[in-house]
This record gives sequence, structure tokens and C-alpha cells, in this order.
Amino acid sequence: MSDNVQRLDKRPRQEDAVQEIVASLRERDLSGLVVRHDLGRTPEFVADLLDRPEVHALRGQLDRLHPADVALVLEALPLDERLLVWELVRAERDGEILLEVSDAVRESLIRHIPSEELVAAAENLDADEIADLAPDLPEDVLADLFRSLPVEEREQLRAAMSFEEDAVGALMDFDLVTVRPDVSLETVLRYLRRFDELPDQTDQIFVIDRAESLLGTLPLHRLLVNDPEREVHEVMVEPVLKLMQDDKAEDAAKAFERYDLVSAPVLDAQGKLVGRVTVNEVLDLVRAEGEEDLLAQAGLREEEDVFASAWRSFQNRWTWLAINLVTAFVASRVIGIFEHSIEKLVALAALMPIVAGIGGNSGNQTITMIVRAAAVGSVSLANGEQLLMKEIKVSALNGLIWGGVLGLVAYLLYSSWALALVMTAAMSLNLTLAAIAGVMVPMTLLRLGRDPALGSSVLITAITDSGGFFIFLGLATVFLL
Amino acid sequence: MSDNVQRLDKRPRQEDAVQEIVASLRERDLSGLVVRHDLGRTPEFVADLLDRPEVHALRGQLDRLHPADVALVLEALPLDERLLVWELVRAERDGEILLEVSDAVRESLIRHIPSEELVAAAENLDADEIADLAPDLPEDVLADLFRSLPVEEREQLRAAMSFEEDAVGALMDFDLVTVRPDVSLETVLRYLRRFDELPDQTDQIFVIDRAESLLGTLPLHRLLVNDPEREVHEVMVEPVLKLMQDDKAEDAAKAFERYDLVSAPVLDAQGKLVGRVTVNEVLDLVRAEGEEDLLAQAGLREEEDVFASAWRSFQNRWTWLAINLVTAFVASRVIGIFEHSIEKLVALAALMPIVAGIGGNSGNQTITMIVRAAAVGSVSLANGEQLLMKEIKVSALNGLIWGGVLGLVAYLLYSSWALALVMTAAMSLNLTLAAIAGVMVPMTLLRLGRDPALGSSVLITAITDSGGFFIFLGLATVFLL
Repeated sequence: MSDNVQRLDKRPRQEDAVQEIVASLRERDLSGLVVRHDLGRTPEFVADLLDRPEVHALRGQLDRLHPADVALVLEALPLDERLLVWELVRAERDGEILLEVSDAVRESLIRHIPSEELVAAAENLDADEIADLAPDLPEDVLADLFRSLPVEEREQLRAAMSFEEDAVGALMDFDLVTVRPDVSLETVLRYLRRFDELPDQTDQIFVIDRAESLLGTLPLHRLLVNDPEREVHEVMVEPVLKLMQDDKAEDAAKAFERYDLVSAPVLDAQGKLVGRVTVNEVLDLVRAEGEEDLLAQAGLREEEDVFASAWRSFQNRWTWLAINLVTAFVASRVIGIFEHSIEKLVALAALMPIVAGIGGNSGNQTITMIVRAAAVGSVSLANGEQLLMKEIKVSALNGLIWGGVLGLVAYLLYSSWALALVMTAAMSLNLTLAAIAGVMVPMTLLRLGRDPALGSSVLITAITDSGGFFIFLGLATVFLL
Repeated sequence: MSDNVQRLDKRPRQEDAVQEIVASLRERDLSGLVVRHDLGRTPEFVADLLDRPEVHALRGQLDRLHPADVALVLEALPLDERLLVWELVRAERDGEILLEVSDAVRESLIRHIPSEELVAAAENLDADEIADLAPDLPEDVLADLFRSLPVEEREQLRAAMSFEEDAVGALMDFDLVTVRPDVSLETVLRYLRRFDELPDQTDQIFVIDRAESLLGTLPLHRLLVNDPEREVHEVMVEPVLKLMQDDKAEDAAKAFERYDLVSAPVLDAQGKLVGRVTVNEVLDLVRAEGEEDLLAQAGLREEEDVFASAWRSFQNRWTWLAINLVTAFVASRVIGIFEHSIEKLVALAALMPIVAGIGGNSGNQTITMIVRAAAVGSVSLANGEQLLMKEIKVSALNGLIWGGVLGLVAYLLYSSWALALVMTAAMSLNLTLAAIAGVMVPMTLLRLGRDPALGSSVLITAITDSGGFFIFLGLATVFLL
């Protein structure tokens, strides 16, 4: 939702304003003023608060912030103070702010805001924006909201909510400016002047026929540089990118990056223009994907509100720890097989984690490289063999160098050339195992049509841990004892 | 560089076209036709090739692709075939394609392309685009290129190259459309009609005075919806975001995301308008940052061409393995201290990797959460204590549950309640250590003004490995032996 008037007085350095508010809230310690909202809102309590000069000043500061910056303030505060700031923000901005906060903070707010306030906040939003909030809203709020919308928006909301989260349909908005092909550019210019403002990120006007089929697009640039006497159909171009509602959002994002787009039309199966995707949605998506990848690598299922309760954090994190416990247990049992060998030569116990650890690091490097390359499309099933050969060569090089270094270290510590040789051999073999598994695991996941980014890392660590212990202790048992 | 005419005949599903070319190249196996280019180009060879019908057809396919898609084809091919495709692409598109390929592939191409071809390719580009290529170009090519540019572009190139890679100055372009404040919108519209086309991603026209100071901005939207009789100064607005040349690119990207911008003006220290940043550059930056983070987590210094030589890959990966070798060695020495205990109770050797491993996983979860929260600004030095308390609670919960599970497992395996209790206690203590280190390590890096994302993960693993071995073996030595 654009708001040019408000933008007029916006300062370029918002970070400072945000930090200032957060710092002043912590200094003044207003937390004593805050009453838990679990029992519903108490309007008298907020009115009382507003009489206090420091709270009044705070409200003034918040009013001057862009909704995205208010969201930052909310994210940086513990629950009590977060709810205080929420109360102080003008009600008409509530919806936009709910859109801007992180998922975790949005959930925490929704849990504490009374239903009627939520309905009022969401009513001001566009259908596609409500659809973004919908999964987090309680059912009764969603039902009330639905009833309060005009018929057209209700249809749009229903449409937007019917798509998978990772589909273009879930990304698109309905802010279309359309014209017919047989009018002059002069007419288009006059038509646009009747708008108070154009939808944000409008860089092209869509040309449609009576059946709302997309005929072409009229970029604002072409509208501006061409003779106004010309007609739309002479000046319009084929869209660089046409999206279908059920295309993958991730693919649409890559196309936006490749072709440097600001917006793209979305069509339904019959070729009817139903919406558009804009680059700001794409930018949010790319950022969110990058963060999800990072969180997933650490085994966090979703972004975690840093002020979430210990119990909620535990729920977010337990799966990963449980999986790792299982793989660690398997590795532990491999060691168990060789307990007699360790009893005889206890140096093995001290050296074995090194072999396993370096194998895991090296395998993860291989996997990360392949997963990234597969994501941009430069790895396919066709070149698997070539990749495997290269990775085996790299691991041979690593095995020679690091295995040699470690062999030397083992000799210096335990004065046994035999032990040193076993160490070098085990390192080389485990690095080779890491290379093979590092190529095969993601390639197999690709072949099965699954995302190689998910689970590859756990699997490779399990393989190189158990494999490393087995190779090292096995070699030692055969050659040293 | 925009090229509307070419875009006219572009197909919406480019991925298929790319995959088709790559597949057909592999099927036909043209690699025998490819001559190594180390000795310079042989134009006769290309002419010969073009007589062959399959190569002619390939060239036709390539001509129909967007430069970004040709880049994808190049990235998906091994060196020989990559160079063949490069030769087949029309020379006037060489520059744009060089811009689009990944860093690793660009380096491989530049190493094999003769200097004069590189100069010719880069000449067609804008100054800011040449600046992007410059770090990869050989010095003589850069010098030739410099001489071939008109004076104005030479100045722009010098300016663009003078900034750090992570500064706004390195991100900006010079494609500015500017007007004076005292003309009518009608005059602006007439002025724009004199352009053949506007620079890509132009969503606003900058309003400057005689000294080129930025007075305001005229969004195309406002130009279109307002009465043409009005003057620019009545309609112009304050820019949502003004950037300085040495602002951090990352901060600019966050502002683009928060305020949903398409372009933003860049000023020098005197307030003179010198360039603009566009959302397509921001999108590339955000994607690249996400990938860098992921690569860094696996200890890869940069994106790796999957077809790079084993030696190049080794260079990209060795630092991380060396660091991990050192930390693994330290952990190994901790185990060494307790060799006598392990000799007496060999079960310790099998159980100790579990304690260390789960501690590392848990610590990495804490760190990842804090690093992400710090990146968006919701963690600051002020709330460290609160965070620490929460993480300790989470780790207590984890210790109780997973420590209990593991204690039970230890009992079932070794039928010793004492060993089971030591296992549970060690798990709880190591998870607490992981929580404390998981908060303190990134907070300390933040306090020192360093990026907490770099190195935190290595450090925490080192702490939980050595700590885990020490705690578990220490407790066992005291209570079991």
C-alpha cells in the first residue's frame, strides 16, 4: 500500500530512529506500565498511559516511522514492551505493520491482540496482503474478515489463499492497470490522470481484450517516449516473462533476477490476466529463502523470535537434535565394535575423532558446492560422473596433504611409524568416502526429484562419522594389533 | 543494457531452451571439434565449424537466448564445450554475457579469451558494468579498455572502481534522467519523447539545480497522474531513500526491501547527484549474500565452478580444513589427558563422541538464531543478559530430555547406573556450555564490531568438542574410577 504523503517526511536514516526508540524504552523501563493482554484489551489503561509525557513522546516518534521500521522496533523488544508499542501505534497502520514483522513476532502479537482489533487491522489491507496474514489468523477472525470484505476482494482472497505457499499465485497481487489495444497513447495518458496514484511498482500497463486475455504489455517507458498519436497495439510489446498461477515462486524469482524485471503478468490456464508479481515480493522471497537455507543448515525449522519462551524454542529445535542423536548413536556403536582394539591401544581413542571430523568437513564442502550449482542449474544428472572424478581427485590431494600432516603428528605423539601410516591411510580413505558420498547423496536426491539441500548435510556427517571410525579402527585392528 | 526489440521475440520458458542446448551438446559430443584456446583464437577454425549444419543450428539457438540464459548454458558446460559456445555467440553480445556468468566461470573464460576480444567485448558496456568486470580483467586489457573510452565514461569508470566492493558506489550506475524544478510536466513529457528509450528500471526522474544538487524526485507515477500544466517543483517529492557513495551496500539493500523501492539516488559528500542504485542490482546482491553465507558456513571461500580443476578446488577449500584440523587436534589432546581412564573403562571411548556432537549441534543452533536476529537488528548488546537466561533454560530442558535418553541408552548398553548418571550429567553440562558459548561468542564478536557470522561456528564447535570430552571424561574419572 503506497502512501506518498507520509513518505514525504521520511528521513533517510531510519536505523538511527529505530535504535533510539528501542534504547529509550529500555532506559526508561516502561515495563512496569505494561499489563498482560491475555485477558483482552483494556482501553482505559492505554488512555492513562497516553497522559504520561514520555509515552506521548514515544507515540510521536512511532508516528514518524515507516511501518517497516515500526516492525523493527517490535522485533527488538521483549513481549511486554512489544505490546505497549503495539498499543501506541495508530490503529489504521496496524495491518501494514503486521505484514512487515517477522513470522515469529507476528504470531506473538496475534496471540495477544483481541479478535475485533485483528479484524479492523486486516480490513485495511489488499486481498493479497490478507492472504499473506491468513495462515496466522485465528479461524473466527478470518471468518469475520471474510464477511466484512466487498465481493470482488472476497473472490481475490479466496483465489490467493487457494495456492501453495511456494506458488506464483501466492506471490501475486491484484493491482492491475489495463487498457485496450485500439486506443491512442494520448487516451491512455488521459486515463491515467484520473487515478489518484498508480499501484506501487507499476512499470507496465497490461493490454487485454474483451475476454481479459493478455495481448501484450505497454511499459511506461514506451508510453513516455512514443508519439501520443500512436495506438497502443503499435507500441505494445510481448511481455518478457509471463507467469502462470501455479508456476513455482522460486522459478519466477530467478527469472526476475535474470531479466531485471520490475513486474510480470500472471495468467490463468485459459490465458486470462489474473494478477501480477512485483519485484518487491521477489526481493522478500529471495531474502527469506537465503535465511531459511541458513536456518535449515543449523536444524532450525523456522525463524525464531529471540524472545520466544524456552519451551517454544525447544519445539523449534528438538527434531534436529534428535536426528543427530541417532546418527551419533550409530557412530558410537561402530566404536563399540572395536572396544577391544581401543583397550589394547588407547591412542586410537584420541586420534579417531580427527579422522571422522575432517571427513565430515570435506564432505560438507562437496555437498554445498553441488547443491549451490544444482540450484542455479549448472549441475544436472548428465554430468555426475565428471563431478565424481573431480571430487575424488580433490580428496586424493587432501588425503595426501592432511593425511600426511596427521601421520606426522601421530608419529610425534606416539612414536610409532605404523600408527602414523594407519592414520594417513585412514584419512585418505575417509576423504575419498566423503567425496563419493558428497557427490552421490545430493545427486540421488536430485534423481528422486527431491531438494538436495534438505538432509544432505546430516546424511554425509552420519556416513563420514561412522565410516571414519570404522576405517580407522578397522585398519588399526588389522595392521597394529 | 535494455534491448526491447530483442525482448520482443523472447519465449517465457527459457529454462527449457537452456536445458535443450546443453543436452544436445552432450548428445552430439562436439568436444572433439574443440581446440584449446591457450594459444590464441583461430578464426578459421570457427568459420570451419560454422559450415557444419549442427553447429549452425546451435548458433541459431544461442542467438535466440537472452544473455542471462547464454550464461546459464556456459555455466553448465565443461571448459572445452564452454569455449565452443562462447565462440558461437555473436561478438556484440560478449560483454553482456561476461557480466551475467558466475565469477568462477567468468575467470575461466577470461583466462582463455585473447586480449583484443576482451577489449571489444567490454567496450560495449556502461562504465558501471565495466567496473564490475574490472577486477577479473588482465591489466593490459584494462589499460586498452580505458584508452578506448570517451572522457566522461572514463571518469565514471575511475569513480566506480574507486569504491570498496561492499559500498553503494560500487553498486550504482550512471543512467540518470534529470530535470529542473521550474519546468512544467508537459515540458518533461516532451523532453522524454526525445529519448529512444529510458534507462532500465527508471521509475523516477531526479530534480536537480544548476549545481547538480538533488532537490527532489519526480516519480513517473506522479508525472502520469498529475495535470501537465503543473510545474515539477509542485509535484516532486522528497526521495524515500537518499544514499551516499560510501554507504554500505548491505544497508542500502535492506532499505530497498523495507521501503519497496525500484531505484534510489546516490549523492556525493557535497550533496551532488552522482548516480543511482536500482533494484536489479539489489536483488543480485541479496542472492549473492545468501549464497556467500551458505558457502562460508561450509568453509568455501567463494563460489566454485563445478568444472574447476582439482587443484583450484583444493585452494578454495584448504583453509577451512586446516582450521578444523587444528581444533580437532586440540580436542584429541583433551582425550589424550584421559587415556588412562579410557584404558580402564573403554565404554567411555564409544560414548564420548555423542556428548561432544550434540553439544556442537545445539551451540550452532543458538549461534545461528542470534546471528540472524543480529542481522535484522533485533539483537543488540543491550539484551544479551536476557538472551543468555533464555538459552540456558532451553539447554536445561534439552539436557534433561536428551541427557535422560542417553543415560538410559548407556545403562542398556553397559548395565551401569553410575555410567548412565555420568552420561546424563555430562550432556546437561555440555549443553549448558554450548548455550553460554553460543550467546557469548557472537555477542563478543558484535561488541568488537566484527561480523558474528564469520568464525562463530568453528569456535563453538571447538569449545563444545574439547569441552564435551573434558566434561564427560573428567566426570567419569572422578566418579567411576
